[in-house]
Amino acid sequence: MEIVTTLSELRIKRAGLQGSVGFVPTMGYLHAGHISLAKRAKTDCESVAASIFVNPTQFAPTEDLAKYPRNLPQDLALLEEAGVDLVWTPTPGEMYPAGYQTWVSVETLTSGLEGAVRPAHFRGVTTVVAKLFNAVRPDKAYFGQKDAQQAAVIRQMVKDLNFPIDIVVCPIVREPDGLAMSSRNVYLNADERRAATILFKSLNAAKLAYNHGERTAEKLRKIMSDKIGSEPLAKMQYVSCADCETLKELEKIEGKSLLSMAVYFGKTRLIDNVILDVVSF
Amino acid sequence: MEIVTTLSELRIKRAGLQGSVGFVPTMGYLHAGHISLAKRAKTDCESVAASIFVNPTQFAPTEDLAKYPRNLPQDLALLEEAGVDLVWTPTPGEMYPAGYQTWVSVETLTSGLEGAVRPAHFRGVTTVVAKLFNAVRPDKAYFGQKDAQQAAVIRQMVKDLNFPIDIVVCPIVREPDGLAMSSRNVYLNADERRAATILFKSLNAAKLAYNHGERTAEKLRKIMSDKIGSEPLAKMQYVSCADCETLKELEKIEGKSLLSMAVYFGKTRLIDNVILDVVSF
Repeated sequence: MEIVTTLSELRIKRAGLQGSVGFVPTMGYLHAGHISLAKRAKTDCESVAASIFVNPTQFAPTEDLAKYPRNLPQDLALLEEAGVDLVWTPTPGEMYPAGYQTWVSVETLTSGLEGAVRPAHFRGVTTVVAKLFNAVRPDKAYFGQKDAQQAAVIRQMVKDLNFPIDIVVCPIVREPDGLAMSSRNVYLNADERRAATILFKSLNAAKLAYNHGERTAEKLRKIMSDKIGSEPLAKMQYVSCADCETLKELEKIEGKSLLSMAVYFGKTRLIDNVILDVVSF
Repeated sequence: MEIVTTLSELRIKRAGLQGSVGFVPTMGYLHAGHISLAKRAKTDCESVAASIFVNPTQFAPTEDLAKYPRNLPQDLALLEEAGVDLVWTPTPGEMYPAGYQTWVSVETLTSGLEGAVRPAHFRGVTTVVAKLFNAVRPDKAYFGQKDAQQAAVIRQMVKDLNFPIDIVVCPIVREPDGLAMSSRNVYLNADERRAATILFKSLNAAKLAYNHGERTAEKLRKIMSDKIGSEPLAKMQYVSCADCETLKELEKIEGKSLLSMAVYFGKTRLIDNVILDVVSF
């Protein structure tokens, strides 16, 4: 496995990759969710590249950039084990040198959900992903369904800007008790960790109601918020029942929809979601 | 010469181009300036691609999108004669389908000059050029020095977003009387056409003062505005003496600088510029 830091090294090593290239962009502190992306890329493509970069422009000044967890040696071992061929670990100075001034923005899709509570977040995400795409030039790129809105926004950017890249979105990987894998789970203390199962429980409660025929979005949102409200350590930021394509809040569920939420446990903010598609008992 | 309209046709024909690819993006109604770009691309690269697309997103509602001149048969004949291999003529619907919502913006460099008087212009330019670059994937792309700020903004975008493309900026091509070639020159009536030589005359008057030792930017701006003021049919929008890199207005000229201007003749708006570098008599 090749490991490079600068853009010029990356370009040289990228040119040496054989055949189709799958790309897994990450912020590091890798867990089984990230590794599932690398393994899927390995199955789909002849070569696999990954990046590890905690992107400062997608964090607000009040957010957790400084304390975001890092463990580069462990990340590299995990990527090597997953069969990754090339890892790019750029520095912030390499990605955003003095005088940096270009931004990629996706408009409508970023107005609700995470975009509503994290106003500059998606501009940072789309900008860094455009930079990574232009540097790595993959054939396919892999994202996790846990960041459902991010996946939708990246798909839209790729379509709108004519990036010749297939976006593959892989299922959420969960802990045995249902908590979605996240690098931020490490912030939780033991009590918060136990309480954090409330996200998946509340999504499942709403999904059960849907499977029993409930189609009023507000009722599903209430099932989720009531359930979260039953957990004393959980502080709900939002719950949503939105159209899967437009991400607009629904009144009546008629097609594929997305249940999603953001919940605080102390200072730790977690998100989770499930897709409601065909009825599945 | 292959001529394609859709993105999918373009991708197929692009894959068939041999060796390095030079790219000349245009809005059509081609003149000797455009052709100089194609010929330079032909000299530098094994294959040459061009696009013809009057990009609606770089025109304000009050500007001349509807009447912008077009002559596709003549454009295609000129490109073929210049040795171009592939021409892409996308439709507005292909470039901006329903639901389009992604924008590429360069910030600081677009705040003055053309950006100050055409507020949404450069966002349209950088967005369409990013789309064209992702579709055509050239090794080099060619732009005219007449749109000096555009060239600087595209260079910045390419650097910031890691596009693996060399930007080549070619000299202004002028009519025998000094008027810079522009598709918009066709709007001028006979009197305006004669009067329009005032742009190059005023640039030359300022350049002469510079060559004689004048280094106070305001004096050069006054020489230009006085000269434009002497032409009854000319209505000055701005004159500028700015740093060549930052495009910020100068007080004292110390390095390479850009003299530029925008002038109306009736409803027709023309721009022109010269670079002040080493003293040249």
